[in-house]
Amino acid sequence: MQATVFHAARDVRVETVPDPTIIAPTDALVRVVNAAICGSDLWFYRGITPWQAGWRTGHEYTGVVEAVGAEVHGVKPGDFVIAPFSYSDGSCEFCDEGLFTSCLHLGFWGGEKNDGGQGEFVRVPYADAVLVVVPADVAAQTDKRAALLALTDVMGTGFHGAVSAGAGPGSIVAVIGDGAVGLCAVQSAKLLGAERIIAVGHHAGRLQTARDFGATDVIDSAAPDATDTIREMTKGGAHAVVEAVGNQDTMDVATTIVRSGGKICFVGVPATITTLNFTRLFMDNVTVRGGIAPVRQYIPRLLDDLGAGRIDPSPVFSLRLPLAQSPEGYAAMDERRAVKVILDVSAA
Amino acid sequence: MQATVFHAARDVRVETVPDPTIIAPTDALVRVVNAAICGSDLWFYRGITPWQAGWRTGHEYTGVVEAVGAEVHGVKPGDFVIAPFSYSDGSCEFCDEGLFTSCLHLGFWGGEKNDGGQGEFVRVPYADAVLVVVPADVAAQTDKRAALLALTDVMGTGFHGAVSAGAGPGSIVAVIGDGAVGLCAVQSAKLLGAERIIAVGHHAGRLQTARDFGATDVIDSAAPDATDTIREMTKGGAHAVVEAVGNQDTMDVATTIVRSGGKICFVGVPATITTLNFTRLFMDNVTVRGGIAPVRQYIPRLLDDLGAGRIDPSPVFSLRLPLAQSPEGYAAMDERRAVKVILDVSAA
Repeated sequence: MQATVFHAARDVRVETVPDPTIIAPTDALVRVVNAAICGSDLWFYRGITPWQAGWRTGHEYTGVVEAVGAEVHGVKPGDFVIAPFSYSDGSCEFCDEGLFTSCLHLGFWGGEKNDGGQGEFVRVPYADAVLVVVPADVAAQTDKRAALLALTDVMGTGFHGAVSAGAGPGSIVAVIGDGAVGLCAVQSAKLLGAERIIAVGHHAGRLQTARDFGATDVIDSAAPDATDTIREMTKGGAHAVVEAVGNQDTMDVATTIVRSGGKICFVGVPATITTLNFTRLFMDNVTVRGGIAPVRQYIPRLLDDLGAGRIDPSPVFSLRLPLAQSPEGYAAMDERRAVKVILDVSAA
Repeated sequence: MQATVFHAARDVRVETVPDPTIIAPTDALVRVVNAAICGSDLWFYRGITPWQAGWRTGHEYTGVVEAVGAEVHGVKPGDFVIAPFSYSDGSCEFCDEGLFTSCLHLGFWGGEKNDGGQGEFVRVPYADAVLVVVPADVAAQTDKRAALLALTDVMGTGFHGAVSAGAGPGSIVAVIGDGAVGLCAVQSAKLLGAERIIAVGHHAGRLQTARDFGATDVIDSAAPDATDTIREMTKGGAHAVVEAVGNQDTMDVATTIVRSGGKICFVGVPATITTLNFTRLFMDNVTVRGGIAPVRQYIPRLLDDLGAGRIDPSPVFSLRLPLAQSPEGYAAMDERRAVKVILDVSAA
């Protein structure tokens, strides 16, 4: 099959790799329909995280079940499915609690040993626990495909940030970062009934999308008085802050604009975060929590919301390419020419 | 009146200072019955926090109302009262939420301008909002006086840590630190119905008190395999961790022994904490929160618990002295000859 393979920093290629097959009786084989390139893929693309030549790429994909192992009963060939960005066994104590990302058998798509989402097929371990079947009537709507793809990661991650930071009716929510996850956090805050949603970013076009997604206010993070403005307009800060960047400076903004007694959830890989304003956390009873979203927990409810038209994260995709052009997709995201890329891999 | 006054590092003295009087119509004047020396008093005693000669000391006291201003209606002369370690107006939005320590008019006892608890009298601003009246039958029990004094700070702080870290029925709670606050956190975890309570410390006598307070396990923090032991005995860590020391190494223990998806509450001044294991927080969805306890919120319920015999934090006091010997009390705590000191100031 064809799949995207990492070779070196800023060098990914689409090439022929072995076709995957069912190995364990709990496996399924999925033919990928759409895949996405994630902002976090840029960490290895830019050579920041140590990746090896030959590793497969991509952890966001939707597809159609092609075959299942003997012990798979929850999905069947022909089902249109969404895969969360990580897989988990669905039966350990952490999965029981919905914390799928702390599963005792946690794994990620791509890398050295697993198929990546940015290829034609993926072997899916623990298929019953991992894959979520999309109702046929929703799957049949081709204009919903991009939104479905967003549920594999960015929408679930944005939702995790919003719900973990305490967004809800009556609350003031601030979202730091206008990338795909930040935008999805804005839409999630609206879904959760937040009273006021402040999007903080520095890209006019993305902040306009934030408004479209439900932001009541947008703040240019580059303005020197940005944090003062937010503290003033909120009379003391936001109850819930989603830090959707993962840098020290954006975390510092978060601890400055959070209200006393409020919560910060950081959902981006904390690549450059080394410290916190511990005095602020202490004196004002501020909560800080990670982290990586147990997306599998949220897909069923977000799928309902999507089917009912309550959410539509599809605008986070600003560039559509065929699988063969995934290297151009990486370049476009690296150079900030695209917010997020959707790859067409096969017909449903 | 006589009051304890800071002069220089390791030099506090009991001396004559002006008698306080009612200034605002919302003030009360309290005659101190008991005062305590707090572990956090050692910060200025040791010269670590910058204090000025002449500042008054002590933020933990109980007493009898001597006089009230014209607008005070909730307490009256003769009432035996507990004061939380900070005062607040009781009417701002943060007080409305129970977050009294973020009050817009927050103040602390002692220092440059306020009376300290370690003296004969204290002028109490916002008396109706600050003071909690002890039922006469409880106040009459002299053997309950030490326990009542603990409600001014350490018991409320321990309770804040336990409840904020999520201690409750079925939970595994770890308390790091065997000082007065840590011990009170152990007793609070028991009060909250925790299934298992692990006390982590390095002082055999204090760990025995932890057992008396409800710890099901005690761990010597100096043992090289302490964190491994805790992770093993809990099969992955504690749901709720109270960090009751405030140092980097104890916070590192906290982020190591907390269960994935669990919570850490740090309730000690984060004097030397400069960083966190952000990767752990991110990958395992760990929550970290401060901080300073809004003790006023908890005093009424803890007073009920105390009256009913469900709690008795009095063993945290290991040395009893008259007010005149408060300098000796500081020295005893500084040299770790005493866990905590209770001062007898006047008869109730």
